[in-house]
Amino acid sequence: MPLLNETHDPALRSWVASAHRAGTDFPIQNLPFAVFRRKGSLEAWRGGVAIGDQIVDLAAAAALAVFDGPAGMAALAGSQDKLNALMARGQPAWRALRLALSRGLREGAAEQRQLQACLVPQAEAEYDVPARIGDYTDFYTSVHHATNIGRLFRPDNPLLPNYKWVPIGYHGRASSIGVSGQAFRRPQGQTLPPGAAQPVAGPCKRLDIELELGVFIGEGNALGGPVAIAQAEDHVFGICLLNDWSARDIQAWEYQPLGPFLSKSFATTISPWIVTLEALAPYRAPFQRPEGDPQPLPYLDCAAHREAGSLDIQLQVELLTPRMREAGHAPATLCRTSYRHAYWTLAQMVTHHTVNGCNLQPGDLLGSGTLSGPTLDQAGALIELTGGGKQPVALPGGEQRTFLEDGDSVVLRGWCEKPGAARIGFGLCEGTVLPALQAPQR
Amino acid sequence: MPLLNETHDPALRSWVASAHRAGTDFPIQNLPFAVFRRKGSLEAWRGGVAIGDQIVDLAAAAALAVFDGPAGMAALAGSQDKLNALMARGQPAWRALRLALSRGLREGAAEQRQLQACLVPQAEAEYDVPARIGDYTDFYTSVHHATNIGRLFRPDNPLLPNYKWVPIGYHGRASSIGVSGQAFRRPQGQTLPPGAAQPVAGPCKRLDIELELGVFIGEGNALGGPVAIAQAEDHVFGICLLNDWSARDIQAWEYQPLGPFLSKSFATTISPWIVTLEALAPYRAPFQRPEGDPQPLPYLDCAAHREAGSLDIQLQVELLTPRMREAGHAPATLCRTSYRHAYWTLAQMVTHHTVNGCNLQPGDLLGSGTLSGPTLDQAGALIELTGGGKQPVALPGGEQRTFLEDGDSVVLRGWCEKPGAARIGFGLCEGTVLPALQAPQR
Repeated sequence: MPLLNETHDPALRSWVASAHRAGTDFPIQNLPFAVFRRKGSLEAWRGGVAIGDQIVDLAAAAALAVFDGPAGMAALAGSQDKLNALMARGQPAWRALRLALSRGLREGAAEQRQLQACLVPQAEAEYDVPARIGDYTDFYTSVHHATNIGRLFRPDNPLLPNYKWVPIGYHGRASSIGVSGQAFRRPQGQTLPPGAAQPVAGPCKRLDIELELGVFIGEGNALGGPVAIAQAEDHVFGICLLNDWSARDIQAWEYQPLGPFLSKSFATTISPWIVTLEALAPYRAPFQRPEGDPQPLPYLDCAAHREAGSLDIQLQVELLTPRMREAGHAPATLCRTSYRHAYWTLAQMVTHHTVNGCNLQPGDLLGSGTLSGPTLDQAGALIELTGGGKQPVALPGGEQRTFLEDGDSVVLRGWCEKPGAARIGFGLCEGTVLPALQAPQR
Repeated sequence: MPLLNETHDPALRSWVASAHRAGTDFPIQNLPFAVFRRKGSLEAWRGGVAIGDQIVDLAAAAALAVFDGPAGMAALAGSQDKLNALMARGQPAWRALRLALSRGLREGAAEQRQLQACLVPQAEAEYDVPARIGDYTDFYTSVHHATNIGRLFRPDNPLLPNYKWVPIGYHGRASSIGVSGQAFRRPQGQTLPPGAAQPVAGPCKRLDIELELGVFIGEGNALGGPVAIAQAEDHVFGICLLNDWSARDIQAWEYQPLGPFLSKSFATTISPWIVTLEALAPYRAPFQRPEGDPQPLPYLDCAAHREAGSLDIQLQVELLTPRMREAGHAPATLCRTSYRHAYWTLAQMVTHHTVNGCNLQPGDLLGSGTLSGPTLDQAGALIELTGGGKQPVALPGGEQRTFLEDGDSVVLRGWCEKPGAARIGFGLCEGTVLPALQAPQR
């Protein structure tokens, strides 16, 4: 389990002045990873680390041999166009690089002149999906979301009997995952209109969001070799924001008996920055199952895991419509919640995923599932916030929404904040809905 | 749609004598692709094409510049350690290479001496998964399987109302796909024992097979750009055999509401050889929906598609237990069926998968779902063959089986055969069950 060390000291000061700006997501205590290049350039994509409003270019740092030993090897691995090689090196490598960066970016550091030459302003950068995602798995770790949505799809049977025993998950589509800024066409598909006897094909009418966290796997496990719960977090490289766009009308008609498919596979948007578990260490929060709930089966439980608890990551969903954009309105906040309400932890996701011998590989992505909190205004999807599309949400300028309309942009934000610790932010995860194609092609 | 051309002529004779042996899977009319190297060597993996009991080494053919023009470029693309680059070149490239190979392998061909130098005996080869599989999707295209298994999981509601409208599918796990010869540990997981109020963790007790075909995507489509039904087959590189090993007890407890997950992700075995749609052209079979069934929605239907029909591929499942192996028994045939009974075609799978804009990529794999035929002895899974584990199957030597036991090997075979056309075979897809790990690790 990550313990607090010198990299977490809230008194640390960087020679990068913007790292001290109030409300920055990227102080010297954060140091998240992304893949970037200069906007509109033909430069090679490469790994970078955020500090204030700058990016430390890992390829430049490796070329200048700013770091030596394990940190230098990690920077070299992080120079590639995807972070899989860095992820595969394992936790000791990530930690060595974090410590070297933390020391080199501090006021008075000997490496300042060299690292200064490695900085690229975030304002000049564009980002790519940070890893070659071999497999993407989406979990369902919010009991509140499972209950809310279960009530809409199965009024008589909202929370299924397996929920409090099994960290439910399913395989998702990796090819359509894009990075913040993704714009995608409203999906076409089959739906069964209310009261109709036969389905129709056409554009989705109930396009929704799902507020999630994405978990990037670092070191993998061999096929046939489960990961024990006490070691599970060692396999986690870090966390990003994830919007699991969902076509509710397509989902309702297709999902039985094999689960959601085309209702999800048209687009999934993630934030470019991956925040490491080490950066999040100050934000561990105690976790206790509600009174009367069963204790997890032994393979999903151990003392160290109970002590590690959950993570208190603040989450927010914002919506900006074309009309609001035109009128100069700020985005409207649709919900606020925290990751600490999740029923199953990161470690339980990893251990359950591998209990059958399934092999996780560096760069694999696990989604948390929609992170709805205990009250309805903390729900992470429109279908919950609007009671199944029946109570529209009011927006600035007099508009309202049940589901997303063409041109709507959705922004997810995440951050950790508390007295006595540095703020750790996740940046933005933004996506925009484009109109559907005219008709399914023939 | 592939039409018959000179490569299909059953009178063609190759200078490779074994291509004429009765019952060979690999006459000159087949020419399937695999990735191989010499067994136990440290040679590079590279593409190869089967002819009789030999393999044409595409890397050697490219190095010797046996072919020029598009066929030469295709052979070069096929020289890599995965076939993705060849797949991405599209149907004209595969066709050019097939035609050049067909001509070069014929008796009297000018290329005989050069190609002779490119042959590697299949007996000396080992195989790898032939493509980097970005995403694996499993469909559910046998209405007979859907009905049989639906009856066991939901006796009151076997075939769900969406089945005859939606080519049901779900995302599968790509990382645990292995090639014929794969041996895997019996999975551990959560199950709810009959009559129990609480689940237990332990080794799967109802380990099953699923007889499927795997469909490799060649050229992909852009995100947001659906593939029309009339063009869908142009995106199919070819077909292999696929065993979707299934842990039925884990499946029954985990599958609601998001579908099968750990009950499938521990192992999936495919045959090494990919048979092209062009090789299968003589085996098109008429397909008609049963009287009274709805016609497919327009995006899943067109005249050319109706004319193309289905494919009459014979399929067989064989079982060999450790005791049978020791006593010298031949494998027992568990079932025989044909792919022509599938309710949804390859083209419908591709078009439905992309109707929402989802992007397929070269090397993606689509499973057909269990290909059970109309009668119970044509069922492609033990759960169907044994009536849910209640009527054991009798085996030579007095043994019986409901589900798989440790040490059992399962072999899938597939072939096409009829008067007036060359036999087209798929080779073998074999997998073996190893004992479970002692206990889920802590």
